[in-house]
Amino acid sequence: MKLANLVMDQWVDGTGEGRLLTSAVDGEPVAAISSSGIDFADVLEHARKVGGPALRAMTFHQRGEMLKALAKDLQEHKKAFYALSTRTGATRADSWIDIDGGISTLFVFSSKSRREMPNDTVYLDGPPEVLSREGTFLGQHIYTSKLGAAVHINAFNFPVWGMLEKLAPALIAGVPAIVKPASSTAYLTEIVVRRMMKSGILPPGSVQLILGGVGDLFDHLSCQDTVAFTGSKATAEKLQRHPRVIAESVSFTAETDSLNASILGPDAIPGTPEFDLYVKEVVREMTSKAGQKCTAIRRIVAPAAIAGELVAALSTALGEISIGNPANKDVGMGALASLGQRDEVRERMGELAGEAAVVYGGKENFDVVDADARKGAFFMPTLLHCEKPLASTAVHSVEAFGPVSTVLPYDSLDEAVELARLGEGSLAGSVFTNDNTTARELILGTAAYHGRMLVINRHCAAESTGHGSPLPHLVHGGPGRAGGGEEMGGIRGVKHYMQRTAIQGSPETLTAIGHRWTRGADQRDPGVHPFRKTFEQLELGDTFTSEPREVSLSDIEHFAEFTGDRFYAHTDEEAAAKNPFFEGRVAHGYLIVSFAAGMFVDPDFGPVLANYGIDDLRFLTPLNYGDTMKVRLTCKQKTLRGDSGYGEVRWDTEITNQDGDVVALYDVLTMVATDAHWASVAG
Amino acid sequence: MKLANLVMDQWVDGTGEGRLLTSAVDGEPVAAISSSGIDFADVLEHARKVGGPALRAMTFHQRGEMLKALAKDLQEHKKAFYALSTRTGATRADSWIDIDGGISTLFVFSSKSRREMPNDTVYLDGPPEVLSREGTFLGQHIYTSKLGAAVHINAFNFPVWGMLEKLAPALIAGVPAIVKPASSTAYLTEIVVRRMMKSGILPPGSVQLILGGVGDLFDHLSCQDTVAFTGSKATAEKLQRHPRVIAESVSFTAETDSLNASILGPDAIPGTPEFDLYVKEVVREMTSKAGQKCTAIRRIVAPAAIAGELVAALSTALGEISIGNPANKDVGMGALASLGQRDEVRERMGELAGEAAVVYGGKENFDVVDADARKGAFFMPTLLHCEKPLASTAVHSVEAFGPVSTVLPYDSLDEAVELARLGEGSLAGSVFTNDNTTARELILGTAAYHGRMLVINRHCAAESTGHGSPLPHLVHGGPGRAGGGEEMGGIRGVKHYMQRTAIQGSPETLTAIGHRWTRGADQRDPGVHPFRKTFEQLELGDTFTSEPREVSLSDIEHFAEFTGDRFYAHTDEEAAAKNPFFEGRVAHGYLIVSFAAGMFVDPDFGPVLANYGIDDLRFLTPLNYGDTMKVRLTCKQKTLRGDSGYGEVRWDTEITNQDGDVVALYDVLTMVATDAHWASVAG
Repeated sequence: MKLANLVMDQWVDGTGEGRLLTSAVDGEPVAAISSSGIDFADVLEHARKVGGPALRAMTFHQRGEMLKALAKDLQEHKKAFYALSTRTGATRADSWIDIDGGISTLFVFSSKSRREMPNDTVYLDGPPEVLSREGTFLGQHIYTSKLGAAVHINAFNFPVWGMLEKLAPALIAGVPAIVKPASSTAYLTEIVVRRMMKSGILPPGSVQLILGGVGDLFDHLSCQDTVAFTGSKATAEKLQRHPRVIAESVSFTAETDSLNASILGPDAIPGTPEFDLYVKEVVREMTSKAGQKCTAIRRIVAPAAIAGELVAALSTALGEISIGNPANKDVGMGALASLGQRDEVRERMGELAGEAAVVYGGKENFDVVDADARKGAFFMPTLLHCEKPLASTAVHSVEAFGPVSTVLPYDSLDEAVELARLGEGSLAGSVFTNDNTTARELILGTAAYHGRMLVINRHCAAESTGHGSPLPHLVHGGPGRAGGGEEMGGIRGVKHYMQRTAIQGSPETLTAIGHRWTRGADQRDPGVHPFRKTFEQLELGDTFTSEPREVSLSDIEHFAEFTGDRFYAHTDEEAAAKNPFFEGRVAHGYLIVSFAAGMFVDPDFGPVLANYGIDDLRFLTPLNYGDTMKVRLTCKQKTLRGDSGYGEVRWDTEITNQDGDVVALYDVLTMVATDAHWASVAG
Repeated sequence: MKLANLVMDQWVDGTGEGRLLTSAVDGEPVAAISSSGIDFADVLEHARKVGGPALRAMTFHQRGEMLKALAKDLQEHKKAFYALSTRTGATRADSWIDIDGGISTLFVFSSKSRREMPNDTVYLDGPPEVLSREGTFLGQHIYTSKLGAAVHINAFNFPVWGMLEKLAPALIAGVPAIVKPASSTAYLTEIVVRRMMKSGILPPGSVQLILGGVGDLFDHLSCQDTVAFTGSKATAEKLQRHPRVIAESVSFTAETDSLNASILGPDAIPGTPEFDLYVKEVVREMTSKAGQKCTAIRRIVAPAAIAGELVAALSTALGEISIGNPANKDVGMGALASLGQRDEVRERMGELAGEAAVVYGGKENFDVVDADARKGAFFMPTLLHCEKPLASTAVHSVEAFGPVSTVLPYDSLDEAVELARLGEGSLAGSVFTNDNTTARELILGTAAYHGRMLVINRHCAAESTGHGSPLPHLVHGGPGRAGGGEEMGGIRGVKHYMQRTAIQGSPETLTAIGHRWTRGADQRDPGVHPFRKTFEQLELGDTFTSEPREVSLSDIEHFAEFTGDRFYAHTDEEAAAKNPFFEGRVAHGYLIVSFAAGMFVDPDFGPVLANYGIDDLRFLTPLNYGDTMKVRLTCKQKTLRGDSGYGEVRWDTEITNQDGDVVALYDVLTMVATDAHWASVAG
């Protein structure tokens, strides 16, 4: 019955009887856990000495491939996770958020790491900064993996997603994790980790699992470790002020409870699609996961004039939700995580009821489907109505972490903004309106208090992921009461596990460190046209310099005729001269880059497969007829595309005139065959 | 004699006698300060209620213009600042770092805000995130100004730069500041603030100045306030664990002492330019500002084989530095900030001497030029040598905040990396080598422990800004012992004063909120060709859709001939088909965009002045001969360029084929005349 901890790549039993975990639905024992006897200093050292080096030996793309394989494996085995998930009180829809939501987070991070990061171990942040007149001394910000462990402390409500949404960015960053799930639902986390280990996909030391307390782990943290916490604000504060966290400036991110508001716009009166969407969303947020979501709508901010109609509509809809055994398909809302949680929610509801009237629910006796109401942690959805929300405090500060929400009427948009702000920092907020002027006013008035906000109207509702769904693409976390942290948000979340460092040096040094050729660094003539080299053969700095070509007036006239681009700056001497940028007719920018291509391409069949784009093209000096242009092409960055047979090569391109003035600067993007692919087609 | 505080836009005397501040050079009284009697809750409210709204009413560009005006004004009045600065113990060179360095920080932030941010109040972070299949529901990260105050607590060593490097990003972010300089040199901060107020450039409430303690200010902080601290780690920790900071998740950034290492590469033996550069830089870092820089080189990490020669060279160079009255032009090093500081440095040096031998300096009696050694806080530059640095602890953890540094010999690059890491987090590190392989190994081995690192060699030395100079373009701050904070770094530093929020909604809603047209939003036919509209007349979403144009084989052949671009994919049917991306000859990408321009431009003289560039061009579907192309151009983003008479307009451009497949996507960048300018040229 006792579940083991995963410590130093071994499944290790904690000492003692441990803590008994029971089913939320019927109170039956599910498992016992104990982390007693574990040496937490060893756990941290294993992550740092074994997991970190193994992960850092892989590129971002390889780590992304690893996550993809892991996601696929978990997907194949998810049936067992779903089966166990009902014991946490979760319906199938709730489990979908937790299990499939978690797996899809792995997929998104896998995809983003391969699309948005280099196939390398150093992430470049922004362009080089020019710090000197002659350009011999430059700056470049880089991100490198922190050399410690990521300590992940998760909440009970999402035992799978909660683990995976933190693991994905850490692993992409090359940082090993120590996962500590909340006890009450830790058995679900455990079978997922067990499957992860069985898959053999992750390198040794990259994940460890602690079931139970973390003992003296915090006493051994160092400046290279990170802590990501999800749970109550009180616990977050305790950990955050741990002497070691403070002394070592340990990166600490917290995602805690918040009193998220959803605002119904003044235009969204009964009868509009937005009103109906609002009722549906509030009910979904109140009852999904039995209201145990950090992002759930706790405060229903609605126009005073229609508050009564809204309460009626919400009450009707809530009445249609059946409560009971989450394994039963007819049940719309399962149980809270434990009887302890049920008592806690009841107590908080009592505090809210001091300022707001219960207008639906709130009863201790209610119908429960296919379950024993005395044994399961069931709770009736409860709606409150607070008449004077601007003069109230509990409704903005007391969170009943269950299916409990309060209607707060407002009289003006300013009041709606003020009410939303009274939450003092929220994870998520939403606005239901079909008026984008209202949307802008409400969003910009409250954004500084929110980590994520959405605007729902008839146009996006069908595809909306809803108020309460954090997405891997978007940041999750919020200021103030929400903990002041931030997770996910694609590569933003990966960076939380890396150190940003400003590097200064010569262009050649920056090229060597960042693997991106930097303007001012050596331009090497490779002896052959660089288009004749395969992906592997190409080296950063390989340069082709063209012969000069004069651009005549007839070239310009011919180009205008051929393309139809008879813009006055190219065709009308007098009109062109009236333009503040030109003294007379100039060559088309498109003519210049087209000629440049004619000057730099090597036409014969070769390893360069295609020009798939151009970045950051800027025309800096006009080219007048009679001027002579010249183009330089330098291999700038290489990104191998897995085993596709080719990679992306970015070329720094500069066009100059006869005086050496820069006419245009841009990056040419090409696909170049690998040795293997080239041998197969050219042979 | 008593200096007033700037509180709620009034100069207000603190009560009581206050604290007497004395000259570092001769111990004479300079001023007295007191913040007693100030109501700090009012100070915060004034910032929030008066300063914040005034700053937020301006766009980023307007705030940038404001900083530029302020910088110019301070530059005109800097003579008085320099005169007073000598009393802090600073030589003219030291004052230049503080005063001119501070002013140039304002200039850089002014320039960056106008170049890299929109002329608006919302900053968009990254591209839209596609969250739905049909594209009706998208995400967009935005930054908005925090709605609180920025509390700036500065160190004594840079009374001007320390204030301005924090003020610049806060003001660009639209956040008002409360400045609390360290007491001992607060008189210099005071005259600069007095000049700032006299200039009348800043709106009311945007800056307040507290001379002395901050009383109960921290008890009134809220989740919208930020604290940026520079000073000792002990004070940082005390403030960081303040109950209110923790409870409100107040954004807190700290920049504290660190034991910065500079590594001499194994190749940089005596006789090489890098060896000489190293000796010069170490001496400069030890003696500039009398070694009172948070970024100064404290640990001299050098190959064991040449440690003796290095000590000799450093000792000779240190012996040439004359110490004394900083107002005297012959003096190379002035005084420490106070006699208290001198005693403190002496004590720390004693701790270091337990592990390392004093090899130069360390004496209490030494020559002092043009000053009384008993009255001024003078200290002899002191070099130590630690034979077994890997087995020592004090040399990696005890900071003597003065002209004191220790030589730490190493035997291998691994050892050099380990020694640098033993600092447990530093603001700055450097490497002197002319071998870029060594540079890469040392930098990537230690970057995770550093906020900034530089590599010096013979190529960049002349233009290098040096080991110890934080630059406004680059992040300043470091992990672990350095406080775990980050400041400056251009717009990165501005974001620390803003809240990042993920916004979700329909493309039309995101366009309204972020003022950037989002793919999927309405495309409006404005009735006239959009090139006929002035900057003011153009609206986001204004769209031009072209007639179709067929691309023939002869077009492709003609283009190849005319431009010289005879790349095989366009000219050789068989070779093209061997390419994995094509089935046969395809049109040149440059032909496609050139034709597109011919299809979308309105040729007659008009408000569109120039196409100055292209961004993010991607060719997505090959265009075969016989295909028909069509182009859509939609007004995407507008950036007014001050009162230049024009603004930048970015056009979302999409080329499709006869089947509606997207052939190419890109942004066309144009300069468009304002109403006023257009009236003046067209009239």
